[in-house]
Amino acid sequence: KLNKETPEFSRGPASLTISVELHAENRKRLCSKLKKIKEVPAGAIIFLKGGEEELRNDTDVGPVFRQESYFHWAFGVEESGFFGAIAVDSGNAVLFCPELPKEYAVWLGKILPREHLQQRYAVDDVCFINKIADWFAGQKPSVILTLKGKNTDSGNYAEEATFTGIEKFTVNNSLLFPEIVECRVFKTAKELEILRYVCRISSEAHIEVMRKIKPGMKEFQIESMFQHYCYYNGGCRHTSYTCICASGANAAILHYGHAGEPNSRTMEAGDICNFDMGGEYYCYASDITCAYPVNGKFTDQQKKIYNTVLKANQAVFNAVKPGVLWTDMHLLAEKVILEELTSHGLLKGDISEMQKVNVGALFFPHGLGHLMGIDVHDVGGYPEGGNERSTLPGLKYLRTARVLEADMVLTIEPGCYFIESILEEAMSDEKYKGFLCPDVIRQYLKFGGIRIEDDVVITKNGAELLNHVPRTVEEIESVMAGGKFTKI
Amino acid sequence: KLNKETPEFSRGPASLTISVELHAENRKRLCSKLKKIKEVPAGAIIFLKGGEEELRNDTDVGPVFRQESYFHWAFGVEESGFFGAIAVDSGNAVLFCPELPKEYAVWLGKILPREHLQQRYAVDDVCFINKIADWFAGQKPSVILTLKGKNTDSGNYAEEATFTGIEKFTVNNSLLFPEIVECRVFKTAKELEILRYVCRISSEAHIEVMRKIKPGMKEFQIESMFQHYCYYNGGCRHTSYTCICASGANAAILHYGHAGEPNSRTMEAGDICNFDMGGEYYCYASDITCAYPVNGKFTDQQKKIYNTVLKANQAVFNAVKPGVLWTDMHLLAEKVILEELTSHGLLKGDISEMQKVNVGALFFPHGLGHLMGIDVHDVGGYPEGGNERSTLPGLKYLRTARVLEADMVLTIEPGCYFIESILEEAMSDEKYKGFLCPDVIRQYLKFGGIRIEDDVVITKNGAELLNHVPRTVEEIESVMAGGKFTKI
Ligand SMILES: [Mn+2]
Ligand SMILES: [Mn+2]
Repeated sequence: KLNKETPEFSRGPASLTISVELHAENRKRLCSKLKKIKEVPAGAIIFLKGGEEELRNDTDVGPVFRQESYFHWAFGVEESGFFGAIAVDSGNAVLFCPELPKEYAVWLGKILPREHLQQRYAVDDVCFINKIADWFAGQKPSVILTLKGKNTDSGNYAEEATFTGIEKFTVNNSLLFPEIVECRVFKTAKELEILRYVCRISSEAHIEVMRKIKPGMKEFQIESMFQHYCYYNGGCRHTSYTCICASGANAAILHYGHAGEPNSRTMEAGDICNFDMGGEYYCYASDITCAYPVNGKFTDQQKKIYNTVLKANQAVFNAVKPGVLWTDMHLLAEKVILEELTSHGLLKGDISEMQKVNVGALFFPHGLGHLMGIDVHDVGGYPEGGNERSTLPGLKYLRTARVLEADMVLTIEPGCYFIESILEEAMSDEKYKGFLCPDVIRQYLKFGGIRIEDDVVITKNGAELLNHVPRTVEEIESVMAGGKFTKI
Repeated sequence: KLNKETPEFSRGPASLTISVELHAENRKRLCSKLKKIKEVPAGAIIFLKGGEEELRNDTDVGPVFRQESYFHWAFGVEESGFFGAIAVDSGNAVLFCPELPKEYAVWLGKILPREHLQQRYAVDDVCFINKIADWFAGQKPSVILTLKGKNTDSGNYAEEATFTGIEKFTVNNSLLFPEIVECRVFKTAKELEILRYVCRISSEAHIEVMRKIKPGMKEFQIESMFQHYCYYNGGCRHTSYTCICASGANAAILHYGHAGEPNSRTMEAGDICNFDMGGEYYCYASDITCAYPVNGKFTDQQKKIYNTVLKANQAVFNAVKPGVLWTDMHLLAEKVILEELTSHGLLKGDISEMQKVNVGALFFPHGLGHLMGIDVHDVGGYPEGGNERSTLPGLKYLRTARVLEADMVLTIEPGCYFIESILEEAMSDEKYKGFLCPDVIRQYLKFGGIRIEDDVVITKNGAELLNHVPRTVEEIESVMAGGKFTKI
């Protein structure tokens, strides 16, 4: 008897056990939203497509399958190649699974009878995929609601579910998308429990790295340690994005770590590091950045910039609550950074005049943070009819411009970078001349950058911090010198 | 000044440094083969497409980019989105790179001038992709040779390179494929050096696992340890396939470890383990399976089956050399397994009679091994006009049926499994009745299975073993008890 019949997900006693009730609740929330839409008639059925295993180019190997995010949200199915249907009126849920050939048992594992899958995923029925058309014919849906909509971070579309013969039915592919996206924006208590878990494991992994890092190590060794900690101790087979392990001048490259910049530099004493790394558990993301000197002791310069960013991070954390506009939070972070850089002699003049010409974006060129959930850059940032994306420097990279509400999960990740190409151009630009102090700025051009990224859930009156890592200069220096970190 | 200008690949002093000369030699080999083909006129130009970064579903995240295998073989380019051309007559090589937008420098890293790329990859010229059509117009090729052909392991095709306006040229997409495939089948000294390196790192990682494994651990913790060792110590960011960490009855599932069977079982004292794991370095694969009891001490039953498979493995290793037919090696391994199982009382009767009805495939249902190189299941197994795939049990899964030649790299991986679904059916089948001893076989039904997989290169007179791990029962028990393993 396989443990797959148990309607839960677990990676052992040291990990978090998740009941598939989470998905029943998600489906219920979605159906009640859809029932309130007048364009959705009685008898509507939602039809979703699960992710498919991908092979690399012409080969027979590929990355470990990870479920498509909407499908995971709705069903929690671990395997590839499924479809799913939800009757909006009754909430009944049906999964369609591939009919596996007999040889599957030899090569890939025990073929679970459909009854086992039904128990495992606690759905009302499980049918084979080649019976989808028959099943829909029997249901006589008034309309089949499929999913089509643009992801506002990637510009890409989720693949719409279909089957041979779907043209005999009424299909609507626009009603479902905004509703399921809005459901994903607001996290349930069950989802928050997973996010707290994966943020805890990832925090522990960051602390492990802080304790083991030494000058002379390669940046990729940090990635390796982090991944190993999250998987070995937390059951996180995936990270929620490619680890950014940037040291020295690389710390000013925001998305460092990809195959073109593969975390391959040797870290040297004196370097500042920006480690932006997050584990993923049960397809839920974390996204945490810790910044510190590789040798464990901040220089005066590093302390100044670090505390500048920390002050911005904390100002935002203290200000967020329902009703607050996210773009205002970005501007708040920017203002704190400008004030601090002024007090350290890199800038001069009036802060609000600086903000008018976007001096902030010269040092803080990315957005303050983003929604986070099943995707690290979670959906729902720019819903149809909501606040539009700004066209201003910095602000235009914000992945959402929404008013905050309780149960939204976001990152708070202000940063301050010394990007030569940006700053050299700015220092010879009339527009900025009155504000920039080139002599001082030039002392920082090889500095790299600092980002401090936390994950929070908006609560009734403020926000709850989901990660717990050393944040003050004193805490970091103490932990890196072997001291305890007791918050976790 | 970036180290990218150096025409070599390295992951630091502890790793292997590879000169891009490797690819110049590969291109030269390919051109001289093509020049001998009468259908290839003077003035032909090869045109290849590099791999592209993939995003998961609608999101903006995806797996770390890994170069397409033919493109890597020809150029060694680390970045995604390139094309490449090789003039067959002169051997001149040109890379076409994406023209990156200015913001790339902020988000993704320094934009290397084309001159740097030309130095880094030691090619004759580097142009932007939007100039491909102009470049070809200037070259006036007699024919553009593009790559199209079926991968005989996956049944899939590599994506053919193209550009807007290619229809104005003569294009041939069939001549290149068999020639480049044949080049990939035979490894150069430079390629063998990488394969030796990645097999050494992966061997060390297997030994690390043997030393640390304990009952009560989760199978995925083995995967995590292995990956960490290969990356942290060897610079292997990827494994060459998904780690198979099968324990107990799972050891009889040949491709265990995928998302549907995610290495999630708790290993218990007494379990046999099959750990099939290989690191990848510079896109070159390793593929090693170690089998042993989780608690470090073989039972009598485990010893019998283990030594059965080891004997088959060694018989093949001792028999391989140029001129030998790979299918004969499969049958040799099968024969040894049948003999041993007979001597242990699981089978009875005449071995050659057993082979006539394919009794071997009941216990050893997969192929003996496969070509290995840039792909773990490397190309060239069934070239057009060569030996065809058998339709017999066991043999039909062989990924090649070729006659061995020097510089081919292959795995030798016999196995003996107790797959309930296969054996229960066989024990009630008249065809097998005279050979099977159900009373003894039934004692093994929960055993799982054993696979012993080595990587070898065929030499002038035999074969060189590329991996070095404890193989005898005595060696394994000693290393698992903390003893030294000195072969490495
Ligand atoms: Mn982030
Ligand atoms: Mn293999």
